[in-house]
Formats: sequence, C-alpha cells, structure tokens
Amino acid sequence: MPLAPSELRTLVEGYLDELALTAELSTLAEPMRHGLGGKRVRPVLCLATGEALGARPESLLPAAAAVELVHSFSLVHDDLPALDNDRERRGSPSVWAQYGEAAAILAGDALLAEAFRLALSYPGGAVARELVDATLAMIGGQWLDIRGDGASDELHRLKTGALFSAAVGCALAAVELPLAEQAPWRAFGSELGVLFQIVDDILDGDGFVLDLGADGARRLADETASRVRAQLGELDVDTEVLLDIVDELAVRTA
Amino acid sequence: MPLAPSELRTLVEGYLDELALTAELSTLAEPMRHGLGGKRVRPVLCLATGEALGARPESLLPAAAAVELVHSFSLVHDDLPALDNDRERRGSPSVWAQYGEAAAILAGDALLAEAFRLALSYPGGAVARELVDATLAMIGGQWLDIRGDGASDELHRLKTGALFSAAVGCALAAVELPLAEQAPWRAFGSELGVLFQIVDDILDGDGFVLDLGADGARRLADETASRVRAQLGELDVDTEVLLDIVDELAVRTA
Repeated sequence: MPLAPSELRTLVEGYLDELALTAELSTLAEPMRHGLGGKRVRPVLCLATGEALGARPESLLPAAAAVELVHSFSLVHDDLPALDNDRERRGSPSVWAQYGEAAAILAGDALLAEAFRLALSYPGGAVARELVDATLAMIGGQWLDIRGDGASDELHRLKTGALFSAAVGCALAAVELPLAEQAPWRAFGSELGVLFQIVDDILDGDGFVLDLGADGARRLADETASRVRAQLGELDVDTEVLLDIVDELAVRTA
Repeated sequence: MPLAPSELRTLVEGYLDELALTAELSTLAEPMRHGLGGKRVRPVLCLATGEALGARPESLLPAAAAVELVHSFSLVHDDLPALDNDRERRGSPSVWAQYGEAAAILAGDALLAEAFRLALSYPGGAVARELVDATLAMIGGQWLDIRGDGASDELHRLKTGALFSAAVGCALAAVELPLAEQAPWRAFGSELGVLFQIVDDILDGDGFVLDLGADGARRLADETASRVRAQLGELDVDTEVLLDIVDELAVRTA
C-alpha cells in the first residue's frame, strides 16, 4: 500500500526536523532552520516518484531533503534586500529580517552546501549531478529576473521548472532507473513544474493571470493538469499517489 | 619530468580562462570571472599532489579548478557589505563594488555550484565529497569570525586549513588513492594550510604576529615549514615539486 501525499509529507517533516547539520556550522543552524519552512511540494514529489518506481520512501529521504534545501537556499538569498527585498516569507520574518543579512547570506550558502552533502550520501554522483544542474539553472533564472531581461517562459523554466524536474530526476538517479527509461518521467516533472507555476500565478494574481486573465489562466491550469495526468497514464507503474499530487497542486489554495 | 609550480600555475590559468560556465548563467559570467582572480595556490597544490602520485596534471584540472572556485565563492561573499565590507580585493574593486551586491551574491552562489559541477565530472562522488566538507567548514569559520566568538586556532582550521586539506584530498580522491594510504597526505595538506596562514599573518601584520611578535611568527613559520618538509620526506614518491611549493609559500612576499 503506497503512502499518501500527506503521509509522505509527514515523513519529510520528521526527517528535516531531525536532520543533523554539520557540527562546524554551530549556531548558524538557527537561521538555516528558520529558512527551511515550506509546503514540501518538491520533496513529496521526489518520494512519490521513488515509491512509484518500487523504492521504499525512506530510502529517498536524503535526496528529497536535498531538493528542499536547494529550494530553501534560493528563497533565503532571493529575499535579501539587494535582491527581492522581502521582509516576510510564509507569514514570518524572512531570514535576513529576523537574523540580519550576514546570517542570511551564510545560512543560504550553508543550505546549498548541506544539500550537496545529502545528495552525495548516495553512491556515485548521479543524484548530486541532477541537483547541481538545477541549481545553476535557478541561479541563472534569478539573475534574469532581477535584471528584468528574461522572457517569462524562460524565467519559469529556470526558476521553477528546473527544480521540479530535479525532484523527479533525483528520485530516478537514487533508484538508478536506466537512462533509456527516464524521458517520460522527466517530461512529467517538467510539466508539473509548469502547472505549479500557473497555479502560483492564479493565487498571486500575476504572471499568467496578467497575460490570460483569471479565467484564461484557470483554463490553462486545467488543460495542463489534464496533460500531466495523461503523461502519468503512459507510465507502466502505479501512479495513484502521483495523481493525487497532481490533483492537489491543480486546485491548491495556498 | 614533473612540471614545476610555475608551469602548473600556467596550466591552471589556461584552464580557468577557457572554462565554459553553464550557459543559463548568461551575463552573470562576467562578475563570476571577475571574482576568479588569485594566486592559484590551492589548485597548484592539487595538481602537484596528483602529479606526485603519478597522474597527469591535466587529469586533475577539473578538481583543481573546483577547489579554486570554492575559494573564490567564499571571497566574493565575504567581501559583501554585510560581512567584511571590503571594497577592494587584490588591488581591484571587489565583485560587489564593481557589479553591485545582487550580482555578487548570485555570482558567489554560482561559483559554488560550478565548483560542484566540476568536482562531479569525476566518476563517483569522492572528489565532490571532499569539497563539500571543506565548504561547510569554511562557512562555519566565516560565521564564527563575523560573530567574533571563535578561538583563532579553530578559525584558521576552518577558514584556511579545510580548503588546503581539500586541495590535497581532492587530488587523492581523483587518483583514487586507497583510504589506508591517505593519512600522511592529509596531514601534509593540513600543516601546509597552517604555514600559509602564518605567512599570511606575517604579511598582514596580524594574527600570529600580534600573538608572538614579528620574530616569533617568523620562527614559527620556519619551524612549520621544516615540519611540512619532514612530512613530505616520509612519502614514498617524488615530492620535489611539492617541496618547491612549500619553499615558495614559506618565503612568499605577497
């Protein structure tokens, strides 16, 4: 019986709560943990992908946590005054607003490095390679964004799509799925990232909503969700939990 | 005939000059390259270690460059106004002074991620594991430093020693030296980091000079250099080039 998304989320929360950070970071652990809040969408996707491929979700936890730490790193740095200058994140002070800019810069750096440490706990370097490519794409996307010179499709691909794909890709690497079988999984991860972004824009009233109107954006979200479900239907495994994740993301309200 | 340190430095410079950065980083490459200047002490050490162990120096270049990129990442972030607030680095504007804080934050992030990409170009993850441990130690050291609550020995171990050890350790990992044979090499790398730090303090008139006076610090540097040479003498390989590096570091004037 596969674990439901809510059960996978509980697993992730437990793992992150108990995650031992590198001892040399000492009290930097506090701003790092503050920066680690979130909905756990990406790590749950990572666990569910591994589970659908026959792995125990527990064996995917370091990879799932690594993806979440990269996500957190990017938010901690993006919130800084020199970048997006956000004093708030998820209803709480952002890391720099709470602990100062120096702590936020170093906490972000340390979250990124810890993510690689976790990814490197798997034999070989395949999980870490997935993560490093996504990280570089995200940094490139943030650079385009603050410079205001990227097309919005390209921005979404880099800032959101890359890490969604990596959430799936890290699971494929961790379970050592042969490369020849990976393409439909990667297409699913990438398209799910698009769905996430459209719904994000609907919730924030920007991006796709400004381009297409509220009804147009909702229609696009529904079409994209249908396409993602069809992609899952072509996979020769039990995708029930992944379908639940798609349904949750399609209609989420936060 | 092994390559001399100056020849290894030329190899590193050439490799870094031609290093293709990830395409998605687009124009962030410019502040990244600005942040990549330096004396190349660590990558030359990495190449010379690999060479002493029988590898072609060229095969060590990605590992050596990865170590240098981690060093550069740390300087680019440490120079930021919220941290050390240095407007100058090696006689030129620091990255933030030249390109702005946002560019410096993202360029530092990207240098770190590119370092891992390079380290992951080796099969297995051993080179990257060396690098990630050193990176986490360095971040912890910088955190202690700006908080002013670390003993100076501990600070040096974290801020300087860890990456010197990793310069040696990445070479050991790249040439796949059996773990059982690594200890004397690691001891050498660590002690060489101490020597580098003492001479740094002599050149800057701080740290060991404040503790021991100018003559005391010079004496300590000479004793440390002797100890490092003795460590090299116990290795059963041709350490001529490594001895040249020790001699250079012991009497350097910049």
